[in-house]
Amino acid sequence: MTRVRLDVSYDGTSFSGWAAQPERRTVAGVLTEALERLLGPDAATGLTVAGRTDAGVHATGQVCHVDLPDEDWARLAPTLVRRLAGLMPPDARVRAAREVSGDFDARFSATFRRYEYRVTDAPYGAEPLRRHATLAWPRPLDVDTLNAAAKGFLGEHDFAAYCKRKENATTIRAISRLDWRRDPDGTLVATVQADAFCQAMVRSLVGALLTAGDGRRPVDWPASLLSHRERSSEVTVAPACGLTLVAVGYPEDPEEYASRAELTRRLRG
Amino acid sequence: MTRVRLDVSYDGTSFSGWAAQPERRTVAGVLTEALERLLGPDAATGLTVAGRTDAGVHATGQVCHVDLPDEDWARLAPTLVRRLAGLMPPDARVRAAREVSGDFDARFSATFRRYEYRVTDAPYGAEPLRRHATLAWPRPLDVDTLNAAAKGFLGEHDFAAYCKRKENATTIRAISRLDWRRDPDGTLVATVQADAFCQAMVRSLVGALLTAGDGRRPVDWPASLLSHRERSSEVTVAPACGLTLVAVGYPEDPEEYASRAELTRRLRG
Repeated sequence: MTRVRLDVSYDGTSFSGWAAQPERRTVAGVLTEALERLLGPDAATGLTVAGRTDAGVHATGQVCHVDLPDEDWARLAPTLVRRLAGLMPPDARVRAAREVSGDFDARFSATFRRYEYRVTDAPYGAEPLRRHATLAWPRPLDVDTLNAAAKGFLGEHDFAAYCKRKENATTIRAISRLDWRRDPDGTLVATVQADAFCQAMVRSLVGALLTAGDGRRPVDWPASLLSHRERSSEVTVAPACGLTLVAVGYPEDPEEYASRAELTRRLRG
Repeated sequence: MTRVRLDVSYDGTSFSGWAAQPERRTVAGVLTEALERLLGPDAATGLTVAGRTDAGVHATGQVCHVDLPDEDWARLAPTLVRRLAGLMPPDARVRAAREVSGDFDARFSATFRRYEYRVTDAPYGAEPLRRHATLAWPRPLDVDTLNAAAKGFLGEHDFAAYCKRKENATTIRAISRLDWRRDPDGTLVATVQADAFCQAMVRSLVGALLTAGDGRRPVDWPASLLSHRERSSEVTVAPACGLTLVAVGYPEDPEEYASRAELTRRLRG
């Protein structure tokens, strides 16, 4: 078998998230269907993704891997991306497909996930052509306040207050980047990067920051919740529509794929 | 009456163009309906637009004007943009509303119209989140060839070969800018600016350039058609989905609104 890395983009608006679910339209579902039509049943067995995005969340830099029979890969490699485009709907695309070492694991070898959250405070709401991936916020936001509040999240913390609790799973994460910019068109964009995120964690962080950014909470309030050992009911999860997975990082040296995966498995099971 | 300039954005996908038509969903139609709900019947009489975009064409910088009773404007000015957002569908927005001199004419005072045309030659087609405003081209395009071919259109020419002929209307236009760039994500973007355009002219120019850019026509072929006195059947009009009206220019000095309008009327009736 040949391990193949697939880089995937999607408009999450009409998907019930990444993960395949019966009777639901999901990104893994349409990708699996396309791979099976091209390569036969079971072609997508073992399909593994870096970030299992929730319903409505978008991606421009999602990564997954799948193992294909050597002869299929040899035959299809030059045309696989174009063929998959013909078999998938326009709101999900495989942007690149390339052979990787068998040690590569899209989920466990990842060193970071980077998300962007787009929100506008314009009185007219979201720009029509970007409305599917931009949250309209009804109050003015201050980018300096957003950045000051975000600083409290940087570094390694227990994000229990911002995570849906899972049995026996750690909620300790290391945030390496969390900053806001105002684009020339007025849109505010948060860039959030961490080794990994708990479910709905980015949207919970953003939800808390927005209530500081519009002045309804003190600037140090979002970080102050980190002392809570339980999910905080005061935090509103920001809507999925503003969130896009933009990049997943991996070790530059393929020799490190396996050791990184082992480390991740040990830390987070 | 107070003359009010409205800056308008729309996703043209689900509109039958700008101009109001019976039984059709148009941008002028939804804007007129919102103005009338806010200000009563006849509120949008005299609504005048800079660029009557065709069905499917988008705008981020459309401009129009309307005359409102002084007392209505005085009362509504601070909240008009927010109120219109509440009354219009999410694919059309009034981004700004401001009082202008009575000499301002959105159509005739304009000094230039600027459009962008987005096209991708990626084997996977259009990026899902930008697919509504990007044409997917099935062959590789060369940006240097596109730019070399585009140079032949710069300056004042009779664009009869690229215009739908109208009785007694001149097809002479002055193109002040026409260049292509490749964005970091691989998308090719043409920027086209002229004093004004005939109907479907930008899409005809782009259609001709794309057949040179993918190598099926010589680089000097698009400009060579300028010698034709009739619309050329060899030119394919590029699809509307790639086209966006991004800006309309006006004299910096309001004193020039009237003289500019008089000049335009004389030249193009």
